[in-house]
Amino acid sequence: MTRLLIASTALVGALAQPALAETIGVSIPAATHGWAGALNFHAERTVERLSETHPDLDFVLTTTSDPGAQISDLEDMVATRNIDALVVLPFESEPLTGPIQRIAESGIWVTVVDRGLVQEGIENLYVAGDNASFGRTAGEYFAETLDEGARIVVMRGIPSTVDNERVEGFEAAIEGAGIEVLAMDHGNWNRDTAFTLMQDYLSRFPEIDAVWAADDDMAVGALAAIDQAGRNDEMFVVGGAGMKEIVDRIRNEDPLLPVNVTYPPAMIATAIEMTVLGLTSDAPMTGDFIIASELITPENAADFYFEDSPY
Amino acid sequence: MTRLLIASTALVGALAQPALAETIGVSIPAATHGWAGALNFHAERTVERLSETHPDLDFVLTTTSDPGAQISDLEDMVATRNIDALVVLPFESEPLTGPIQRIAESGIWVTVVDRGLVQEGIENLYVAGDNASFGRTAGEYFAETLDEGARIVVMRGIPSTVDNERVEGFEAAIEGAGIEVLAMDHGNWNRDTAFTLMQDYLSRFPEIDAVWAADDDMAVGALAAIDQAGRNDEMFVVGGAGMKEIVDRIRNEDPLLPVNVTYPPAMIATAIEMTVLGLTSDAPMTGDFIIASELITPENAADFYFEDSPY
Repeated sequence: MTRLLIASTALVGALAQPALAETIGVSIPAATHGWAGALNFHAERTVERLSETHPDLDFVLTTTSDPGAQISDLEDMVATRNIDALVVLPFESEPLTGPIQRIAESGIWVTVVDRGLVQEGIENLYVAGDNASFGRTAGEYFAETLDEGARIVVMRGIPSTVDNERVEGFEAAIEGAGIEVLAMDHGNWNRDTAFTLMQDYLSRFPEIDAVWAADDDMAVGALAAIDQAGRNDEMFVVGGAGMKEIVDRIRNEDPLLPVNVTYPPAMIATAIEMTVLGLTSDAPMTGDFIIASELITPENAADFYFEDSPY
Repeated sequence: MTRLLIASTALVGALAQPALAETIGVSIPAATHGWAGALNFHAERTVERLSETHPDLDFVLTTTSDPGAQISDLEDMVATRNIDALVVLPFESEPLTGPIQRIAESGIWVTVVDRGLVQEGIENLYVAGDNASFGRTAGEYFAETLDEGARIVVMRGIPSTVDNERVEGFEAAIEGAGIEVLAMDHGNWNRDTAFTLMQDYLSRFPEIDAVWAADDDMAVGALAAIDQAGRNDEMFVVGGAGMKEIVDRIRNEDPLLPVNVTYPPAMIATAIEMTVLGLTSDAPMTGDFIIASELITPENAADFYFEDSPY
């Protein structure tokens, strides 16, 4: 049973184990959609880099498609690989909390990434994106760029605390800038839903100066609808997360896509690097690292474009 | 003028600059008291370590005794050393905010350590201790260790937001544990004040089960008064910050000093390491890292004892 589940996961970096080597387990969701694909890309890349710079460290990287498989992976990492540290992005918070708590209580260093556990104080290190900063960074760009009286439409994600934090950050940032929000509906972080929603916005509003799509998948849907309506010259679109195709258009100065906001899948690299520092240096690495969103512009877009990443 | 101020600061790690080398400036308060002494120790040690592992990086480390000298140091780092990144623990928040803001706006990466600036959003990375966690960690130990009805005395620091956060964390953690706080006065983080305050507590209260001194300098003062009164066997003392002599007594299982709580001067190592990762890797390092306090026990005390540190 265990063997079957393990066989269905990807294991990389399982090098021969020298004496006194420390082993770091990394467990992340499989590359089932764009952002998770980039997460896998950055995890593999960081494990490769650190395996070279730290020959005394072993890595075991597993990817899972459901919470049950992830729990089995974690149990296997402890039982057969004797890991000293675990870096885990929980597939779901609720079912993974107990298993991760038992691992932490056994004395293994635990780094939790982005999706927090349902009980506080279990992990040594928590590394996560900042949803309020994600919305605020976009909102600040709108407030600085648009004239008073400008009209915008907004596409929200799936109703959730993540979506609420993002929208609250955005609304606070545009407050007092004289921007009129014509409509704000849920595009559910979905390309097709966003396409239909944007068609609706375009038919309802004869003048739109800008779109906040709050996620690059929705931005792609919105762009398709705008293109179909032939209204490319009227407005700009700001998505978010740093999708490769979007960043490429920003660095090529597409007027329709002036900027983007990060919610970086590369945070898995941050989490692995900090965990390694925690194991190999005297620098304290216990605590909460909240990664701020950054504004991607034509000037800095090259820093956010990863040629070999799937996303 | 500038030359005079620079001559009064310590400059280490100023290696010959190879082509394309990146230079990191580190500016911290001089070693005028215990915690700052350890800060200097960890900064020098980290710069030495990273100079070896990253021959492509240059470091310039300066220590200052007042805000004016620190401002001059920063100006000099920019003007004559052409730094690419700055790691700074501001001597005071108010006078340093403007100069650091100008450096950040010129495109230099800025990491601020522990003492925040008076305006938000200037620095790329903020690394700091967690005062609420400092108080909570001590309070949780009291709640778990002491029986219901136990009597304790508390020594607060200098009236400040730092002190308030620590005490609030402590009070929340002992709530409901049935611990009686006999008295809670300000020892002002000072050894002599704490000695006098403890003498007063000892004369007023015939039975004391434990002391929360909230800082190791105060703990040393309290211990002296307890020793003088010959009441060593009656109580235990929990300080905080990880002073070397205290950690040494914990690892030797002194019943008077069962545990300690970190507010680690080694956080400067964390800040320098993360800044180097920000410059040399693709891992996002922009954001806020709040370092949780850890409980030092006889079992893990060796990890917190630095033989060559002055503190």
